[in-house]
Amino acid sequence: MSFILDECLQNDTIFLADFPLCRLLLMNDKQFPWFILVPRVLDVTEVHQLDAEQTSQFNLESAAVSHFLVDCYAPETLNIAALGNIVRQLHVHHIARFTDDKAWPKPIWGLYTAQPYTDIQLQTLRKKCLDYAAIDQLINVNHQLNKS
Amino acid sequence: MSFILDECLQNDTIFLADFPLCRLLLMNDKQFPWFILVPRVLDVTEVHQLDAEQTSQFNLESAAVSHFLVDCYAPETLNIAALGNIVRQLHVHHIARFTDDKAWPKPIWGLYTAQPYTDIQLQTLRKKCLDYAAIDQLINVNHQLNKS
Repeated sequence: MSFILDECLQNDTIFLADFPLCRLLLMNDKQFPWFILVPRVLDVTEVHQLDAEQTSQFNLESAAVSHFLVDCYAPETLNIAALGNIVRQLHVHHIARFTDDKAWPKPIWGLYTAQPYTDIQLQTLRKKCLDYAAIDQLINVNHQLNKS
Repeated sequence: MSFILDECLQNDTIFLADFPLCRLLLMNDKQFPWFILVPRVLDVTEVHQLDAEQTSQFNLESAAVSHFLVDCYAPETLNIAALGNIVRQLHVHHIARFTDDKAWPKPIWGLYTAQPYTDIQLQTLRKKCLDYAAIDQLINVNHQLNKS
């Protein structure tokens, strides 16, 4: 059986890339720089259910997304979270937070209706993200794995 | 310089144990099984700032707390999160969530005034937690490290 993305995540997000372990998604809500990593592992709902190798790879991929957020957005803090209250498929939020964002200092989940990106905004953001060295590198590693 | 726990965390939580990397705290709020891991590392505010060895140790300690929550509370899901919106010192929430808890399915941060445990509740919970094999083992490893 191959990996199937949860329907809610499918509807609310935009596909950015596949890393060796995770799918990188962008929440389609321009109010917050909000990225999601979904390990492409069947039937996993909690972080601690990943095996040692998957955990180690997850750390690399999460760090790449975190560095991207810090370098490109200079946020006050990152919100990194695996919740699973609505969507049970394991997915880990990576959100750049600012003291002047509309939800600060509250967590953002469930607070506001999403405001979708325009096509041009999306094009710019996708390029910025996929060109970021640590992210580009993970995409290339995944391509090599798929070729071999 | 030695590790100093943030004052907010000091006020809101109860000390349970020191693991090799993290201090394990219990949020003093009987409404939710809510534990916090604080890496005893100076000036770290984000998960990705931990070095490779610290990250690997953090994963072990987080998994032990997660297993304890799953085994002892049988929750619907765990909420594992590093936020930092209020307290900048890196700390990672580990919360057991239930479909009939008072905040479900919302995140719990900032929603309710804490309801402190009674002394007897605290004594029972501390024993249950510190006697859990994976947690007891981490405490023992830390004792050995401090002796050597």
